[in-house]
Amino acid sequence: MRLLNVDTVEEARQKMISAMECHEPETIEKELLDAKGATLAEDICAGENVPFFRRSTVDGYAVKAADTQGAGESIPVFLNIAGEVEMGKGCDQTVTSGTCVYVPTGGMIPEGADGVVMVEYCELFSDSQAAIYQSVPVGANIVEAGDDMKEGEIVLKRGTKLTPQSIGVLAALGITRVRVYHPWRISIISTGDELVAPKEKPGPGQVRDINTYGIYAMSRQLGFEVSGYAVLKDERSLLFKTAEKAMENSDIVVVSGGSSQGKKDETNSVIDELASEGAFTHGLALKPGKPTILGYDKPSKTLLVGLPGHPAAAMLVFKLLVGWLWRTRTGGKEPYPWTAEISTNLPAAPGKLTCQLVHLERMEDGRLLACPVFGRSGLISTLSRADGYVLIEENKEGLKKGEQVSVFEI
Amino acid sequence: MRLLNVDTVEEARQKMISAMECHEPETIEKELLDAKGATLAEDICAGENVPFFRRSTVDGYAVKAADTQGAGESIPVFLNIAGEVEMGKGCDQTVTSGTCVYVPTGGMIPEGADGVVMVEYCELFSDSQAAIYQSVPVGANIVEAGDDMKEGEIVLKRGTKLTPQSIGVLAALGITRVRVYHPWRISIISTGDELVAPKEKPGPGQVRDINTYGIYAMSRQLGFEVSGYAVLKDERSLLFKTAEKAMENSDIVVVSGGSSQGKKDETNSVIDELASEGAFTHGLALKPGKPTILGYDKPSKTLLVGLPGHPAAAMLVFKLLVGWLWRTRTGGKEPYPWTAEISTNLPAAPGKLTCQLVHLERMEDGRLLACPVFGRSGLISTLSRADGYVLIEENKEGLKKGEQVSVFEI
Repeated sequence: MRLLNVDTVEEARQKMISAMECHEPETIEKELLDAKGATLAEDICAGENVPFFRRSTVDGYAVKAADTQGAGESIPVFLNIAGEVEMGKGCDQTVTSGTCVYVPTGGMIPEGADGVVMVEYCELFSDSQAAIYQSVPVGANIVEAGDDMKEGEIVLKRGTKLTPQSIGVLAALGITRVRVYHPWRISIISTGDELVAPKEKPGPGQVRDINTYGIYAMSRQLGFEVSGYAVLKDERSLLFKTAEKAMENSDIVVVSGGSSQGKKDETNSVIDELASEGAFTHGLALKPGKPTILGYDKPSKTLLVGLPGHPAAAMLVFKLLVGWLWRTRTGGKEPYPWTAEISTNLPAAPGKLTCQLVHLERMEDGRLLACPVFGRSGLISTLSRADGYVLIEENKEGLKKGEQVSVFEI
Repeated sequence: MRLLNVDTVEEARQKMISAMECHEPETIEKELLDAKGATLAEDICAGENVPFFRRSTVDGYAVKAADTQGAGESIPVFLNIAGEVEMGKGCDQTVTSGTCVYVPTGGMIPEGADGVVMVEYCELFSDSQAAIYQSVPVGANIVEAGDDMKEGEIVLKRGTKLTPQSIGVLAALGITRVRVYHPWRISIISTGDELVAPKEKPGPGQVRDINTYGIYAMSRQLGFEVSGYAVLKDERSLLFKTAEKAMENSDIVVVSGGSSQGKKDETNSVIDELASEGAFTHGLALKPGKPTILGYDKPSKTLLVGLPGHPAAAMLVFKLLVGWLWRTRTGGKEPYPWTAEISTNLPAAPGKLTCQLVHLERMEDGRLLACPVFGRSGLISTLSRADGYVLIEENKEGLKKGEQVSVFEI
């Protein structure tokens, strides 16, 4: 009964990390416009100052700030207009004491100027003279070269998930191809004599397979490529052959199903035989998620994952193990959970990490209330009603109503 | 100076809704495996009970619960074994008083049975008799037909963003094609004499265009299709022609740029001319985001959006207006914000909604701290350092250190 020797989630995670030590995620270069959602495989260092010249943040006159001292609403200072800066052009004018140059918003600040007076505080006195009605300090209305990004500065770190705003940063630096992590290739196998494909009508005693679709969508959500999927009858040789074949072109082979004792042992024995050093995890101290099996095959570089047959449990375990592993191996950071108040007393499973599904409600004062969604782990509707989950540590007896919890998105 | 008549964000939103009243988002049918992230365009009603037969949640013996009364660890009850249920098969056995039938986890509960005793509490006494060492109540270890989803029940609502778990729900119901909203087609135009494409090296006074890439990525994040993008010199006739052409195959044409007064007026006048009833919003009471222009052209069914030239402002306004509009028109719900404590006193712009960028830190007790990210709205690095934004209402003077705020993800 090896299934009794369960690992904690933390132990299982560390075993995966150790087993896959030499399995570096591959990288690939992507066009920036196609890179949204991908994970940066390198630090990005600014190759130049952004902006690389001093710019005005307003429409106005570039001046020597000292020249405006004493100017005010009713006491103008008069400066000679030495020229006008055109948008998108360099400027060869120089601002010397007693002169000013017109600059549009975003235009280049001429040599010698150290401040800009907004056009609202200026008046054309003649074609060649401006009356300035405001005193400005040095640096007024100027963005200095490098104010946005400094040459040599690391502006995005390896592991950054490319959001629209980080894509904007890369565009500003002229980086239109980026090195990102190649998504893992995953194969999904669902087993069970009772399973039929979703498009079929189940006969007596049969149910539609949920896990293939659920794990497929979750894999895509994590950015993985699904290299294949199959729904199999419960037959050891069939599972063995299908998994062995899938290992040829997958980083991960996921097998779900087999909820009865005999079937669980079968998945266990198949993974045990296929993994070069046998299965290393034969169950998780997690509720739900006990019948989880893990192994790694060195020659083919494949992680083998046996998931519980119950859809909600399968998807949660997939997220807690495979999702965590991808994030950890690619240098990503865990998304911030919501902070919420638990709506009711909640017992936990002694000696196990409890993963409690909750849905969120916003209270009148803006804070969030986490309401447990009850239902057996076999029920997919339970999972779909939940916004996230709360983890209750193994050494905790449960949660007290009103206690503050972190809610992680599913 | 029509630009002085600014709208609040709420007013601008309502004007968009009114203008687009007859512009129903189109729908499209998608294969379930390709539907992740799409928005359901219809309520989903369970066409059948899930499961549609009574199932066992354990390996054990299906019994009449009353027969087990009085059984205990040392006092077994003996029942005749009337047969065995096979996984994925119907069963024609009936459990009558004094008999039991073996059922695997997930197997069909035979007629007559109203409870299951786990195999751990049973012993084979002979080939045809089992000793039962536990008393079980009616319903023990049984999932009733419809326990997961009841026939006729609405299980997913229009507007649901298809997550892996909702895809699981659809798979369970045998729904492998779903009607979802057709993504809006968007064209993105950046204007500015100072702009060069990101892959070019800027000359004196020039900068790389950020908005095309940023808004492109943000559009993809919202699920839109980008039907075209262009970076243009500041020339009214060029902008007019490009926007007019884009209206032929777009639901939305976004123009960004023109940060100087003259250029802002130009975008305004182009949108004013292209929209069948002229522009309806000529500025937003939002900081940053004032130079925002909105109009709608009825004949071509196109929303025209003039965004601020500053990248951070452009992306925030795009999210607050276009992102909001898509969610509202497709029946979606706003994602739950994080609840956090603001780390410092923060003044707000009087009479304007202030959109303050913040980055989050997790405090020791698990709560989140929202730390303002300061920097001019023209700086893209400011936006990329932020995890989200806090909205400070127009009638609020600012935030006090330690005050609780809602942080919305960018």
